[in-house]
Amino acid sequence: PIWPGAARNIYEKLADAGFVHKLTGVCPTVAIHIPWDKVKDWDDLVEYADAQGVRIGAVNTNTFQADRYKWGSITHADPAVRKVALDHHLECIEIARRVGSPAISLWYGDGTNYAGQESFIERRHRMIAFFKEVYAALPNHMRMLIEYKFYEPAFYHTDLSDWGQAYAICMKLGPQAQVLVDLGHHAQGVNIEHIVATLLDEGKLGGFHFNNRKYGDDDLIVGTINPLELFLIYNELVAAGDAAKDVAYMIDQSHVIEPKIEAMVQSVINIQVAYAKALIVDRTCLREKQAAHDVLGAHRVLMDAFETDVRPLLAQVREEMGLHPDPIEALHQSGYEAKIA
Amino acid sequence: PIWPGAARNIYEKLADAGFVHKLTGVCPTVAIHIPWDKVKDWDDLVEYADAQGVRIGAVNTNTFQADRYKWGSITHADPAVRKVALDHHLECIEIARRVGSPAISLWYGDGTNYAGQESFIERRHRMIAFFKEVYAALPNHMRMLIEYKFYEPAFYHTDLSDWGQAYAICMKLGPQAQVLVDLGHHAQGVNIEHIVATLLDEGKLGGFHFNNRKYGDDDLIVGTINPLELFLIYNELVAAGDAAKDVAYMIDQSHVIEPKIEAMVQSVINIQVAYAKALIVDRTCLREKQAAHDVLGAHRVLMDAFETDVRPLLAQVREEMGLHPDPIEALHQSGYEAKIA
Amino acid sequence: PIWPGAARNIYEKLADAGFVHKLTGVCPTVAIHIPWDKVKDWDDLVEYADAQGVRIGAVNTNTFQADRYKWGSITHADPAVRKVALDHHLECIEIARRVGSPAISLWYGDGTNYAGQESFIERRHRMIAFFKEVYAALPNHMRMLIEYKFYEPAFYHTDLSDWGQAYAICMKLGPQAQVLVDLGHHAQGVNIEHIVATLLDEGKLGGFHFNNRKYGDDDLIVGTINPLELFLIYNELVAAGDAAKDVAYMIDQSHVIEPKIEAMVQSVINIQVAYAKALIVDRTCLREKQAAHDVLGAHRVLMDAFETDVRPLLAQVREEMGLHPDPIEALHQSGYEAKIA
Amino acid sequence: PIWPGAARNIYEKLADAGFVHKLTGVCPTVAIHIPWDKVKDWDDLVEYADAQGVRIGAVNTNTFQADRYKWGSITHADPAVRKVALDHHLECIEIARRVGSPAISLWYGDGTNYAGQESFIERRHRMIAFFKEVYAALPNHMRMLIEYKFYEPAFYHTDLSDWGQAYAICMKLGPQAQVLVDLGHHAQGVNIEHIVATLLDEGKLGGFHFNNRKYGDDDLIVGTINPLELFLIYNELVAAGDAAKDVAYMIDQSHVIEPKIEAMVQSVINIQVAYAKALIVDRTCLREKQAAHDVLGAHRVLMDAFETDVRPLLAQVREEMGLHPDPIEALHQSGYEAKIA
Repeated sequence: PIWPGAARNIYEKLADAGFVHKLTGVCPTVAIHIPWDKVKDWDDLVEYADAQGVRIGAVNTNTFQADRYKWGSITHADPAVRKVALDHHLECIEIARRVGSPAISLWYGDGTNYAGQESFIERRHRMIAFFKEVYAALPNHMRMLIEYKFYEPAFYHTDLSDWGQAYAICMKLGPQAQVLVDLGHHAQGVNIEHIVATLLDEGKLGGFHFNNRKYGDDDLIVGTINPLELFLIYNELVAAGDAAKDVAYMIDQSHVIEPKIEAMVQSVINIQVAYAKALIVDRTCLREKQAAHDVLGAHRVLMDAFETDVRPLLAQVREEMGLHPDPIEALHQSGYEAKIA
Repeated sequence: PIWPGAARNIYEKLADAGFVHKLTGVCPTVAIHIPWDKVKDWDDLVEYADAQGVRIGAVNTNTFQADRYKWGSITHADPAVRKVALDHHLECIEIARRVGSPAISLWYGDGTNYAGQESFIERRHRMIAFFKEVYAALPNHMRMLIEYKFYEPAFYHTDLSDWGQAYAICMKLGPQAQVLVDLGHHAQGVNIEHIVATLLDEGKLGGFHFNNRKYGDDDLIVGTINPLELFLIYNELVAAGDAAKDVAYMIDQSHVIEPKIEAMVQSVINIQVAYAKALIVDRTCLREKQAAHDVLGAHRVLMDAFETDVRPLLAQVREEMGLHPDPIEALHQSGYEAKIA
Repeated sequence: PIWPGAARNIYEKLADAGFVHKLTGVCPTVAIHIPWDKVKDWDDLVEYADAQGVRIGAVNTNTFQADRYKWGSITHADPAVRKVALDHHLECIEIARRVGSPAISLWYGDGTNYAGQESFIERRHRMIAFFKEVYAALPNHMRMLIEYKFYEPAFYHTDLSDWGQAYAICMKLGPQAQVLVDLGHHAQGVNIEHIVATLLDEGKLGGFHFNNRKYGDDDLIVGTINPLELFLIYNELVAAGDAAKDVAYMIDQSHVIEPKIEAMVQSVINIQVAYAKALIVDRTCLREKQAAHDVLGAHRVLMDAFETDVRPLLAQVREEMGLHPDPIEALHQSGYEAKIA
Repeated sequence: PIWPGAARNIYEKLADAGFVHKLTGVCPTVAIHIPWDKVKDWDDLVEYADAQGVRIGAVNTNTFQADRYKWGSITHADPAVRKVALDHHLECIEIARRVGSPAISLWYGDGTNYAGQESFIERRHRMIAFFKEVYAALPNHMRMLIEYKFYEPAFYHTDLSDWGQAYAICMKLGPQAQVLVDLGHHAQGVNIEHIVATLLDEGKLGGFHFNNRKYGDDDLIVGTINPLELFLIYNELVAAGDAAKDVAYMIDQSHVIEPKIEAMVQSVINIQVAYAKALIVDRTCLREKQAAHDVLGAHRVLMDAFETDVRPLLAQVREEMGLHPDPIEALHQSGYEAKIA
């Protein structure tokens, strides 16, 4: 581990998350990954989370690491492999039920590396059949969030390569199946806010994995490469109103050269900045300019919000919540990073 | 016109197409574009086509050129503009009916250039309502092919930006609505053969616009940048069997620096090469290798077909059809290009 | 012409530019394009510009439009075609001398569409020989700015495809040859500020064509797709100090759906915002954080400047210059757009 | 290790390479990586290689793995870190001298993840100074090959991001410094054969890392995604004649789901196919068509070679060399893979 103090297990992760939530006031849930975060006593974990001031959020399955999944997991030609994967999913649903989680979160490395390696269609049929079995096992209150990814670890094709693939499957399953958007899982140039708006319009936006990328799936801190894009995504979420009320927000990043807790706090701040700017968009004025085909006038309404310095506003909100106005300074003063190191 | 002899109207286009069909034996239909190719006497046009040995294929609408569509056509906020667009579509359906065309082919420049310019969702609702009206007017035997495009002429978002957007709408319309895949309308790296297979699996592949690209929507001759990709697309079509029987194949290219008739003949040859190679794939062997997880063995089955020189086979087939074995040579010998110049 | 009032000739362009300069105070020069902007009496044009409060900036050659350049201009295999191109360049140098312009600005559509069409190397040798002749004709005070472009109108290769190609040639020519960076002429993901810094370090940054892109060479208003990128480019320019003092700044955009004068004013504002933010970066603090390997601390120093709302500062500066604090409002109040329409 | 039998040390690697060379007859050298492949007795290693029928090729440095290089190696702000890196380079030169290697091969992970993290220019100055020290230590017969990479592991900027960056530095060093082209280290769409031709023209093409990619740096088997591109690269190498005689050819791939030895043999076959096709291009005819501006005719000359099935020719050549005509079949018959497993 490059960073001294990096969380070694789910208890330490919850402690870290609790601390980030204490600093920022807006991170009340923590996603868990099975089997990495598996514990013997789930009630104890829920209690521990509660003591840290957080709850357990989405439960992530993992069928991409074991050697048995080298040629696929939910798309694997061998029913025995798919059975192992299915049992794992059922276990995750059960865990989610026990820890009070509202959703299971599903990402797969499934795909192929060479043309001809397998039949796209046969894999797709196996995948759809698999999802139907998982869906059938979902309790009524629980959602399944299906994530797509353009490429990697598969380099010729991925079975769930874009929002369209995930959406098409969710439509076959039912209202509890929704799409999860990871900001780094698109081809270059793709307009993500347009996808977000479309999925909201279809009732199919389940959640986000926040991060940022310049090249591939870079998993940098969200909002560091193109903060305007993040603002425009939040602009769609705010504009959607109630339609966005169940969207799950998760941070999914990789911190190799920067301190992890500070990186998490910075991520939260960047998201807050984008969200605050989206909230102050003058939507009445926006609609007027749009109706008048005043292209640049309408654009300026958005940009006026984006150019506004919302940091004083956010500092004030934090103080009203009883928090330090600057979470980074609070982190540095806390000695937390030194303590866990 | 850079090229002497370039077709100036639909009659000349049909004559050119008839000549290309005479040389190649495999291009029996010609798509027409309204209003460019509008004539007073459709019966006369059908007769003329017949005399050239070709039929009229898909009828293309055009709502991207007139100044009135500057801010959109089927997504335009003004019902009056949409009404003009709808009347145009209804006219195209009527023309298609009169000339015996099996499909109308729909591409739009609709989109925005600046964030905030318009509401994604409102535009989408207008677009869906529009398509429903068009669909309702379709005769039973006629399909509507909805084309998507990643960008251009709109540079911030396009309303039908990818196959997912087109597919989602086709699903709301019914079986006569299908997706049209233009090979140049994707983000870099997108696996087109995977999209083709998926749409075939869903019964939603309506047709192709063939061309090739290295960068943007370059509209080069199909098969000149990555012939393996074209082969892999045909591999899916052949593998799909009957599911691909109604797919419409169109060449949609831009010939700026090369002679147009020769470019068309070359395009047909490139497509034939890809198709012939797909036909000789040893599918039994492929399935065996796939079943055994022999990744490279299965890949080699495809590549064995790709590496085969099918030109002698194609020459023989042409001779059996009573054609010159080399359509390019036949073109040069014909004096046709000089004649029309 | 879609927009009523669009400039029809160089006199109208100068009048428009003079008006934009009057509103913004920071656009004192206007690039001209030969032969489009060619006039009989250059002294009269210089006087007219002066009366509008502007000067003539870079002189752009044009060897991409005429039919003779279909297969290349400065790379064309035929010496007669290259001779026409050379004479045109010499004429542009003479015009630049007469109108007091500090630079000629060179962009080419040269390239090929199909593999094998021509020899890369032979074209390159002709291009280098051509540039040497142009360079030899340059007066001492005049620079030649060589622009590169990733693709379009050539779709297989462009002879000057990236900064490396342009730089390698400038190194063979001498100190008066420099690279021109058009923000829209790169592959997806390319770090433009890194190129800018490298060229500044080499003394080879000649100038910019400002615009913005999301997909290809979209030519949108600068700063509308990723304002952080524009700020980071200005950050390099400010950090370079004197090394950037001769850089030529030009706006090169295409306004299809928005009013042109307003678009120009908006472009200037966006550039001013980026520049002002770059000026307020706390460089001492930045260096300290960098030296301490405080990755996120250093990043925040930049982002603190970026997040600052500099619009009040810019309004104040404008008022001190005797200008309206809001150039867009001043434009709307002026009645100028109505007048020229 | 996923694959039973994967080489665990340099002796096993040499044995594998010797076996691949025995099957294919065209892989006589093996690059080594320091410190991974470091041994106590280099003479013994050279003898062992000799016994396997192979020689040691380029010596690769490694300054990207150790924790000390987290913020850079040859660009690191701390002279102490750079000193460690320099000593490592000097050691590699010494090893190259001892094992009779003609070149050291240099790739770096150096770059930054966040804007502002460090100064591009200061890093560049340190990198250039570093390379000058390495260059000064090179024996006369030894080359240094500088590799560039678009991104990864750095995600905001890489210090050697493209061929232009590597070329500019090689020009400052001298004739023994050349650029190494890894086929997977470019932005999407980049015309690699154009870069190859340019570097050959400048005497700066040092070598290749062969592999293929569809998305990022996918490290798939060379020639599996776009075999036409590989052919076009070889076409430039063949056309360059003597100018390409010192180019080093290396295979640099990652085999996760396919057997490694078979993957290496397949890579060699794919390269041979591309090379053989490039050798049979009718260059006299190509020049004639090019001179006549017969765009499609010239293109067809290349494509005629590409469409030719060269596998029988290659089989014959192998038999003349005393090899099995089909190296894959020979591999399967050999029992080698079972033996090492």
